[in-house]
Amino acid sequence: MERTLVGYDRLRDYMAEMLKAGLGYPDATARVASEALVEADARGHASHGVARIKMYHEELIDGLNDPGATPEVVRETPVSIVIDGNRAPGFAASRLAMDRTMAKAAEHGTCMTVVRNSCHFGMAGYWAEQAADEGMMGVALTNTLRAGIPLFGRERLLGTNPICVAVPAGRLPHFMLDMATTTVALGKIEVAARRGGVMPVGWAVDEGGADTVDAVRAAEINRLDKSPYGGQLYLGGAKEELGGHKGYGLGLLVELLTAGLSLGTPTYDTYVGSCGICHYFQATRLDLFGDPGEIKAHVASILDRIRSSPAAEGRDRIYIHGEKEFERRRKSLEEGVYLDPATWERLDEYAGLFGMDRLQP
Amino acid sequence: MERTLVGYDRLRDYMAEMLKAGLGYPDATARVASEALVEADARGHASHGVARIKMYHEELIDGLNDPGATPEVVRETPVSIVIDGNRAPGFAASRLAMDRTMAKAAEHGTCMTVVRNSCHFGMAGYWAEQAADEGMMGVALTNTLRAGIPLFGRERLLGTNPICVAVPAGRLPHFMLDMATTTVALGKIEVAARRGGVMPVGWAVDEGGADTVDAVRAAEINRLDKSPYGGQLYLGGAKEELGGHKGYGLGLLVELLTAGLSLGTPTYDTYVGSCGICHYFQATRLDLFGDPGEIKAHVASILDRIRSSPAAEGRDRIYIHGEKEFERRRKSLEEGVYLDPATWERLDEYAGLFGMDRLQP
Repeated sequence: MERTLVGYDRLRDYMAEMLKAGLGYPDATARVASEALVEADARGHASHGVARIKMYHEELIDGLNDPGATPEVVRETPVSIVIDGNRAPGFAASRLAMDRTMAKAAEHGTCMTVVRNSCHFGMAGYWAEQAADEGMMGVALTNTLRAGIPLFGRERLLGTNPICVAVPAGRLPHFMLDMATTTVALGKIEVAARRGGVMPVGWAVDEGGADTVDAVRAAEINRLDKSPYGGQLYLGGAKEELGGHKGYGLGLLVELLTAGLSLGTPTYDTYVGSCGICHYFQATRLDLFGDPGEIKAHVASILDRIRSSPAAEGRDRIYIHGEKEFERRRKSLEEGVYLDPATWERLDEYAGLFGMDRLQP
Repeated sequence: MERTLVGYDRLRDYMAEMLKAGLGYPDATARVASEALVEADARGHASHGVARIKMYHEELIDGLNDPGATPEVVRETPVSIVIDGNRAPGFAASRLAMDRTMAKAAEHGTCMTVVRNSCHFGMAGYWAEQAADEGMMGVALTNTLRAGIPLFGRERLLGTNPICVAVPAGRLPHFMLDMATTTVALGKIEVAARRGGVMPVGWAVDEGGADTVDAVRAAEINRLDKSPYGGQLYLGGAKEELGGHKGYGLGLLVELLTAGLSLGTPTYDTYVGSCGICHYFQATRLDLFGDPGEIKAHVASILDRIRSSPAAEGRDRIYIHGEKEFERRRKSLEEGVYLDPATWERLDEYAGLFGMDRLQP
């Protein structure tokens, strides 16, 4: 029988066990990491889900990640924190960061936190959302592995550098903008490579810095990381005509707010993989600006006005950011989390490697 | 003799006089407004320069703007301010906002300020840059007049909603990202309309929500504002394929941080013109995160690494955001500020209307 769906709790507990048994994560880190990964799969973002076990394992055997290390606060003020991740899993550093950020914001109104020497933290939305769950605005930014090309350049210097901002609307879902600043995630180029090998102009450039539609080559450039040239484009593409300077500017802004403010490693100096990276988190109380109930109701009314406006011909409806993921997550909790065949295979492979039983649906 | 260039100081003083004599701006407001406008022309952004006298005059005779009104602080905490602009010129509200924001940030580390019931504040960069000049990070956001279409929609509900973030690098120019979240500014569509009438796919949609390359029609839709349908697209265009949901998300985020947090008027409820709009400002001290000199040097090294990387074939160099404007401004201060023939004509027209002498080069 083909395996497709698996219960949320069963998958989360299984992944926690795999991270402990296979990678030596401490229990608390394994639990937060497994939840963050399963949340991504439950929302339909497999690129940040349990299939990432492969990357975390590779970073470990390459000696880049130290699962037992303890992230530590190295500087703080009433409204800011600096954390050295000490190359522990990004989940451990981010858990510490968000807990302290939300506590300081609760006391002082807002807190901005930067983290250096961290590793991959999963989906940015997992972290920013926690502030919104507490009625605060939340921000999560991170630099990542070398992927993107500055406008008019050809060297892969910056990451996909996502921006996530969560704004509570007094009901679920929150407004949740969670976007790579590159045109698309690398996963989309890999899917295009498998399905015919052609992708749209605006996703990537070749080693000379010219637009390319060759998805197979573009996927290899990033994955093999053999040459510093060629890579993904930022939102707006390779020309100023459609705003390529804006997307590149957003990616560079994320780099400055993460690696810059934390005195951490810029994307272009990180190792292959994503250890050594830097994050930025923020939580801000709504009552800095007015009655929180009024503000949330006003935010909700703005979202409602947009959602209920007429759709373009040929379109069913207008979405607010976070809605699709919210609906998908509800379905996953009811019916089970969908994992594609390649992900099931990957989990089997690592179960074998770590001497664990295979995951059962 | 054709007029082209005019001295920076002469232009600034002339515009201050025009705003006082013609529009009844108080002296202090006229001086800050004229500087903000001339700074835009000096940097090559004529769309936010002295030609805007027409819009400010129209808002005045339509009774939307009250030049003598006094913006007031209606709520504050150690790290936040809420200002009611009372429909005074946006320059008056923004001057008050940035002065107070920087003072609070100097004392408490950071300050976030929202302004409601304001009017057009010129170029966002003029405000954010002032924080960077003091060694702080600066942010300026604003909603604007109805211009943009939510992805998959066809009603013009949100503004061009610019994002400006300034990060000091310990030398000039600062990193200055200053971008409309729409693909292009309305001015570019108007230029395309004059030059052959064709624009690229991705700038605007027609009344049915379909991609259009008809720049004449697209410019009329926004300028005449006769129908609520059709308008500009956000960065990434009309499809998810090139990230249209991301640009629309950034525009909506700006709407929530300005109109949402300030309990102000959303773009879709503002009058024709841009009175009643809302702003967001922030200033943040670098020493929240480490030694400011070290952070600025680290930021500069990241910018240098990108700037000195190899350019794509057919491109001369890679730009950092703010460089082009900085170079243009230096030239304008040395040689004079360039005004195009239409702007000279417009100033003559308003000089006639207000009984002033024509501006001499």
